[in-house]
Amino acid sequence: MAIFGDEKQGNNEFVVTPWHVAGKVDYQKLIEQFGTDEITQELLTRFERLAGGSHHMFRRRVFFSHRDLDKVLDDYERGRGFFLYTGRGPSGPMHVGHLIPFHLTRWLQERFDVNVYIEITDDEKFLEESRGLTLEQSRYWAYENALDIAAVGFDPDKTFIFTDVDYIGNMYPIALKVARKINFSWVRAVFGFNQQTNIGMVFYPAIQIVPTMFERKRCLIPAAIDQDPYWRVQRDIAESLGYYKAAAIHSRFLMPLTGPEGKMSASQRESAVFLNDDPKTIRKKIWRAFSGGQSTLELHRKLGGNPDIDVAYQWLYYFFEPDDDRIKQLHDDYRSGKLTSGDMKSILIERLTEFVERHQTSREEVKDKLHLYMREGRLAQRMWETKFGLEE
Amino acid sequence: MAIFGDEKQGNNEFVVTPWHVAGKVDYQKLIEQFGTDEITQELLTRFERLAGGSHHMFRRRVFFSHRDLDKVLDDYERGRGFFLYTGRGPSGPMHVGHLIPFHLTRWLQERFDVNVYIEITDDEKFLEESRGLTLEQSRYWAYENALDIAAVGFDPDKTFIFTDVDYIGNMYPIALKVARKINFSWVRAVFGFNQQTNIGMVFYPAIQIVPTMFERKRCLIPAAIDQDPYWRVQRDIAESLGYYKAAAIHSRFLMPLTGPEGKMSASQRESAVFLNDDPKTIRKKIWRAFSGGQSTLELHRKLGGNPDIDVAYQWLYYFFEPDDDRIKQLHDDYRSGKLTSGDMKSILIERLTEFVERHQTSREEVKDKLHLYMREGRLAQRMWETKFGLEE
Repeated sequence: MAIFGDEKQGNNEFVVTPWHVAGKVDYQKLIEQFGTDEITQELLTRFERLAGGSHHMFRRRVFFSHRDLDKVLDDYERGRGFFLYTGRGPSGPMHVGHLIPFHLTRWLQERFDVNVYIEITDDEKFLEESRGLTLEQSRYWAYENALDIAAVGFDPDKTFIFTDVDYIGNMYPIALKVARKINFSWVRAVFGFNQQTNIGMVFYPAIQIVPTMFERKRCLIPAAIDQDPYWRVQRDIAESLGYYKAAAIHSRFLMPLTGPEGKMSASQRESAVFLNDDPKTIRKKIWRAFSGGQSTLELHRKLGGNPDIDVAYQWLYYFFEPDDDRIKQLHDDYRSGKLTSGDMKSILIERLTEFVERHQTSREEVKDKLHLYMREGRLAQRMWETKFGLEE
Repeated sequence: MAIFGDEKQGNNEFVVTPWHVAGKVDYQKLIEQFGTDEITQELLTRFERLAGGSHHMFRRRVFFSHRDLDKVLDDYERGRGFFLYTGRGPSGPMHVGHLIPFHLTRWLQERFDVNVYIEITDDEKFLEESRGLTLEQSRYWAYENALDIAAVGFDPDKTFIFTDVDYIGNMYPIALKVARKINFSWVRAVFGFNQQTNIGMVFYPAIQIVPTMFERKRCLIPAAIDQDPYWRVQRDIAESLGYYKAAAIHSRFLMPLTGPEGKMSASQRESAVFLNDDPKTIRKKIWRAFSGGQSTLELHRKLGGNPDIDVAYQWLYYFFEPDDDRIKQLHDDYRSGKLTSGDMKSILIERLTEFVERHQTSREEVKDKLHLYMREGRLAQRMWETKFGLEE
């Protein structure tokens, strides 16, 4: 049984599956339970040397765990190369937390000059019955989300963004070869499926595994830790099909506005800041966010706040304040009581407003270029000409 | 539990599933167990009136059972029309028994001037692990079998022959909608799947159901009775997706050369006559076939033979001797002992050799026309332009 925790978690328990995150996630425990490896300082130093730079989401262990990142670096050093793969389940509008793996993936593409494949799982979000989405709705969001993703600024000749429903014709042969290696008993154990799970969902893991086989190179997957069960299955079958075991780097979840438990959810609009929220909404949401401050200003000045559970500080730390000196200052000043929760929120509001406005501008600009990522860029063109899994 | 019998059948038991037929099939019992309806004389008379003709495979109840054939006739009378769907699992070369539904389907197309859809399930035969076929092998047979099917002489502008792997891009959206309505528990019960069944096979029933939704009309499926479990599932979900419940006519299995048990199998070459067997092989196989005659000629003349278990007579009755007077004569003369088993075999050999030679000639001739059925005929072209299951 690979899932950690179950639906009826108690006080100190939590749940992390591809479809459900609840409770206060203990990331150290997840490493043990999922059997992944911590990103050590030694590995990070080597990585930064090869990347020719450093990213605060690595330094601060937003990406905290990995599988075979060391082998990816070996391959890179030997000139064998690698490629990047990540994705998005288009269940609704995207919030800022959803952009974490995409921003990091774009940075990795710049640093290593590699191909990026981005799968938008319109099939999965329709099959996930509790969402209550029609296929037409999940496809609507697929294209809306594709714009948000393209707006992050990937190389249009080295990036292929596709939806499963659009691209299945090219993936089905290899999906069959993957599916033939996986039995019901296995997906039941890994994904918590049961007798009532619909047969589309039972098949779906094969589809999410396919893009790890788009090249005969090692695939590095930057994604939130909840997606790891797919890569575990992939790693058990890839070599028997003549492909590499997927490598992965796992991110934590950006803390929801409501506080340290669970993850942000598009179905609870008050838990997250969305990429199309206006400045007024952003201000209002952050102002109401859970804070680590004391109940009165007087007490706060005297006892100081707790940055570990302060949403505003956590968001700055994870994503919006890349400067290490500045973030340390914010941390210490909040801890000492010099900085109030209101101060911290004001700083975040400024950063966030600027970020969302910049994103919205990029999104408008990329509308004319989306066809490059999806159909006509150099990589996209080649992908539409390729059928995977048929040996002629 | 919809499957009748199980793998450990005793003396009077038998098994009929889409992947396995064993024992002496009791067709009357199958009607009860599958919950289908017998084709009554009254229904047949009405059918023949509307068809403007009679086919010996109906008269002799080779097609013995149905679902909603009466409703198909209602629709036809009211001008609403219907369409035909059948298929082939490309696990190897085709034998004469495989042609039964195709010959009848072609006859129905001629009589009612309707569209025919023929699905070649290259995905299924790869996923069926006990076959031990690679996907490349099942695809090789898909194209070989497509030639044999096209050779039957369908209307190239009203017939679409496709393999699932080729055509999945157009079927996937509606396959998802079908799959979302079917859970594992259900396919376990209907198809006998278990925990060890691979997830491709678990999903596959959705794929075989899709072509029943190619038109917003009633679909009539001429197929062997072992395929009925798919239509049972289809009939439970079709209306909720806005389509008609599939209608079906069910054929018996042509008796294997080895005698009255099981069905002919491509994996036992001695059990069947293949469409590419040469006259010498045909002669040898029929000569060795199981017969209903007595152990000596003297005894045979005295006691007579049993046509019910005589392979040569059964083949003539089911397929190769359409003339009712002539078949009655053969029956009576064999029963009385006037006709020997050798005589019966000689008659079959002549018919069969002629049939296979004619088939092989048609097969050669149709090679230039296969693209019409698969890509460029009027119906095929329209099918390649259509994506099923997406409401725009």
